[in-house]
Amino acid sequence: MRLVFVGDVVGRSGRAAVVQQAPILRARWKLDFIIVNGENAAGGFGLTESILEEFLAAGVDAVTLGNHAFDQREALVFIERQPRLVRPANYPPGTPGRGATVVENAKGARLVVVNLLGRVFMDALDDPFAALDRELSERRLGSGCEAIVVDVHAEATSEKWALGHFGDGRASLIAGTHTHVPSADHRILAGGTGFVTDVGMTGDYDSVIGMEKDEPLRRFTRRIPSGRFEPATGPATLCAVAVDIGPDGLTRRIAPVRIGGLLNAAEPDFWG
Amino acid sequence: MRLVFVGDVVGRSGRAAVVQQAPILRARWKLDFIIVNGENAAGGFGLTESILEEFLAAGVDAVTLGNHAFDQREALVFIERQPRLVRPANYPPGTPGRGATVVENAKGARLVVVNLLGRVFMDALDDPFAALDRELSERRLGSGCEAIVVDVHAEATSEKWALGHFGDGRASLIAGTHTHVPSADHRILAGGTGFVTDVGMTGDYDSVIGMEKDEPLRRFTRRIPSGRFEPATGPATLCAVAVDIGPDGLTRRIAPVRIGGLLNAAEPDFWG
Amino acid sequence: MRLVFVGDVVGRSGRAAVVQQAPILRARWKLDFIIVNGENAAGGFGLTESILEEFLAAGVDAVTLGNHAFDQREALVFIERQPRLVRPANYPPGTPGRGATVVENAKGARLVVVNLLGRVFMDALDDPFAALDRELSERRLGSGCEAIVVDVHAEATSEKWALGHFGDGRASLIAGTHTHVPSADHRILAGGTGFVTDVGMTGDYDSVIGMEKDEPLRRFTRRIPSGRFEPATGPATLCAVAVDIGPDGLTRRIAPVRIGGLLNAAEPDFWG
Amino acid sequence: MRLVFVGDVVGRSGRAAVVQQAPILRARWKLDFIIVNGENAAGGFGLTESILEEFLAAGVDAVTLGNHAFDQREALVFIERQPRLVRPANYPPGTPGRGATVVENAKGARLVVVNLLGRVFMDALDDPFAALDRELSERRLGSGCEAIVVDVHAEATSEKWALGHFGDGRASLIAGTHTHVPSADHRILAGGTGFVTDVGMTGDYDSVIGMEKDEPLRRFTRRIPSGRFEPATGPATLCAVAVDIGPDGLTRRIAPVRIGGLLNAAEPDFWG
Ligand SMILES: [Fe+2]
Ligand SMILES: [Fe+2]
Ligand SMILES: [Fe+2]
Ligand SMILES: [Fe+2]
Ligand SMILES: [Fe+2]
Ligand SMILES: [Fe+2]
Ligand SMILES: [Fe+2]
Ligand SMILES: [Fe+2]
Repeated sequence: MRLVFVGDVVGRSGRAAVVQQAPILRARWKLDFIIVNGENAAGGFGLTESILEEFLAAGVDAVTLGNHAFDQREALVFIERQPRLVRPANYPPGTPGRGATVVENAKGARLVVVNLLGRVFMDALDDPFAALDRELSERRLGSGCEAIVVDVHAEATSEKWALGHFGDGRASLIAGTHTHVPSADHRILAGGTGFVTDVGMTGDYDSVIGMEKDEPLRRFTRRIPSGRFEPATGPATLCAVAVDIGPDGLTRRIAPVRIGGLLNAAEPDFWG
Repeated sequence: MRLVFVGDVVGRSGRAAVVQQAPILRARWKLDFIIVNGENAAGGFGLTESILEEFLAAGVDAVTLGNHAFDQREALVFIERQPRLVRPANYPPGTPGRGATVVENAKGARLVVVNLLGRVFMDALDDPFAALDRELSERRLGSGCEAIVVDVHAEATSEKWALGHFGDGRASLIAGTHTHVPSADHRILAGGTGFVTDVGMTGDYDSVIGMEKDEPLRRFTRRIPSGRFEPATGPATLCAVAVDIGPDGLTRRIAPVRIGGLLNAAEPDFWG
Repeated sequence: MRLVFVGDVVGRSGRAAVVQQAPILRARWKLDFIIVNGENAAGGFGLTESILEEFLAAGVDAVTLGNHAFDQREALVFIERQPRLVRPANYPPGTPGRGATVVENAKGARLVVVNLLGRVFMDALDDPFAALDRELSERRLGSGCEAIVVDVHAEATSEKWALGHFGDGRASLIAGTHTHVPSADHRILAGGTGFVTDVGMTGDYDSVIGMEKDEPLRRFTRRIPSGRFEPATGPATLCAVAVDIGPDGLTRRIAPVRIGGLLNAAEPDFWG
Repeated sequence: MRLVFVGDVVGRSGRAAVVQQAPILRARWKLDFIIVNGENAAGGFGLTESILEEFLAAGVDAVTLGNHAFDQREALVFIERQPRLVRPANYPPGTPGRGATVVENAKGARLVVVNLLGRVFMDALDDPFAALDRELSERRLGSGCEAIVVDVHAEATSEKWALGHFGDGRASLIAGTHTHVPSADHRILAGGTGFVTDVGMTGDYDSVIGMEKDEPLRRFTRRIPSGRFEPATGPATLCAVAVDIGPDGLTRRIAPVRIGGLLNAAEPDFWG
């Protein structure tokens, strides 16, 4: 099974990259599934239903979120009617939406997508380790699904690695998001789970993690806000991770994807 | 000028990689300078003088530190007599050691090395932006030095990018350390400064950021310490960034270096 | 019902105050129950079984803990055999010990003691609001117990007030600990629950929150540890809150207690 | 010299208490100076010039701020023309306004007011210890002023106590603000400086630290904002500290002031 997971899409520039590239990559690499983290798609803060539908129309199979999940208040409503949209599973019981979903593609393959929020250097939510354990106990690779992808939306590298080892062997891919920086440590863990600390953002890298850089620089040096954060508008780099998943649901090959914008280009060489 | 900067060396496994590779890389790539972040070299926590001297004997030109700078209490003493050892410049006035140093190589080229600590999600120190501005005002590219390298030891990607843009055009390289994960976003900023969010650790990646993984996993799941953190002992990946610096002191080419261990290998292709 | 709850006992000086005053206050005010927060009793960090037994021998009915609950590793073992010792209820499932306990006094009155840890500015645990709701659903005032006391061990005043309002009407007393400073805002909430943001520590106030002040001052000014924290050894102020609880289990009167040491003395005036 | 320092005034309810009580207390206790922390006066967030002038018209001599200093953007402008308004001294160089001011009363007595922000659990600013040392070196008790009051606006009790001991003997009063809870640990430190960890807020205590309690409770339990924070509108308790300062500029007597609202009333007994 061939799968691409695209990191935090930031603003208009990031959305344009997804909408343009999703169909191209799907065709070129014969992808089974495309997943996108959309927590920054709406002006940098959250997701609207019309953006979600734009992603789905471009061929995206599932959208994950993060700490900005509900920045757009309408998400509390539309998330209930959008089965392909996942918010972190460790929000408290009763939170609108779902922490995991099953997506079926045209060939009948089923993918489970789980979303988690870290707690180190972030607001306190329920335990992401317990949530991951629960999700991976309910849906097992090979029984009811052919692949499981976990989006670990977290700040601290230690927590992301620990969640990776914790779920190793039970998920196809455990991939980090949130820092908006792609990590070069993609690898296959001892138990066969693909892992990367952060997929990286899909946005304009001539910025401060996707935002136009003047205001962040002012805040860092003056310690006083003087305006709003606005997404940078230069061409985006689409950042993603590509995984080739075997019949046992574990990852056989993993590679970074970087297309466009300021970063060095990267593509998997195994889908020739 | 050819320069390699090696990220956080963790424990015995990381030290072995540095000591073995430094002479090889120097010869192979005709390096002018090798810099190493040594804050985790002594059992994961700080640096001893004997380890420092081992690095220098292997051809390392300068060693930087970070939030673990003084975990080994002897560092407060020996740092005063080691001109090639740099601790973060934004420690308060009166802190032993220096926040920047000038290193001269055999050919007479002079390199300035600056070390900074971030403040986001870290303990409060003096302002790293003000400290960087001060260091870059005192020593200018082309007047008294041919290159300036800044080790930004910080957690938050936003702070690292902001420090990069802040010093852009005045330093040869602004490279992050501390997260122990190499980022794939190496690039040359608008003003000519090479930048990468994190160089990555030099240590065993079958771990939780360099530490044997059982204890971190127990702490994350049980929320109670049950032992000490110990560096993982498998083969290290040496993680570094390679920069080719022009006569104006700015970066012409930048590439990641990853040698050995679990990560995908990477090398500059421009020093063929 | 007459009850006194004593805040974080720090080191030898704090222990001496508890052991001396507990029998005196019990006799003088005809107390039904004395509860003590013991998380700093053993040299400032955690609790040993022998200290616990010293408290119980002095007439203390129950001991609560906090973020230092397991600083003394032996606590993981002896907590299982000490039914009067309570650790925060929002540790993960499987944690040794109990998050709530029922204590019966000589007259047959039953008191429920609950312990919670806050999450704001503290390490992430499970949700203290959910934990409080669970404990207060299982044991109700008037059915199986005559009083319920909740020790909210937390840093942020906002979280403590919110937990107070959240449990208002279902507990006799919701009292904060952890900051080591007594607050002067004791009051009875709208639903009848006694509340105080912090009971204050029982320790030497010529200190930095109970610790000998040289090392904290050095760390704050130099940003580098130069020694261990040691409890200050001057005479302690016993800090507590006194509540008079009615037959409905709600609080009728509440007053601070401050005895000895550097702080202004305070005592309830309602127990003649 | 007789001085009253009023803690964080929250919203309309808090302002009404200040404007009503300031003239009464001044007359009744023959006060030399009244200082007010105004960081939450404008709807809970910051200060406007018209509110400042309302305070001054009511007889307030100086107004301090805190982490909300510049929540109202107009403060960046009007602070320059308001010599009785002080913002934290450890903002970076170049910040509008002043970190200390000298106020002279009708009898010719001069009071220095200093404002500091803590860094523990707060955003990073410059070192408050260094800033305090600088301010206390420039203006000494007895040479150019008869009293010095320092408003330590900070979260952590440890940092506040450490700043107290650090400035002990060089200031008349070092009093904390920011937690919105009055502490009962007012005392005179070894060197003669009056100290209290927190003066407490002047606002409606039927709230979550001054804010109407529904929204804070929702956020704590659901972890998702569902509205804005609004100041509670019930009657305020004016919380303050009263100090009697000797001819040497040190504190002879210190007592809490609590007037109105839900908290137990308190007044100094030494101004008969
Ligand atoms: Fe994001
Ligand atoms: Fe995020
Ligand atoms: Fe490190
Ligand atoms: Fe570090
Ligand atoms: Fe404590
Ligand atoms: Fe505590
Ligand atoms: Fe405030
Ligand atoms: Fe504040």
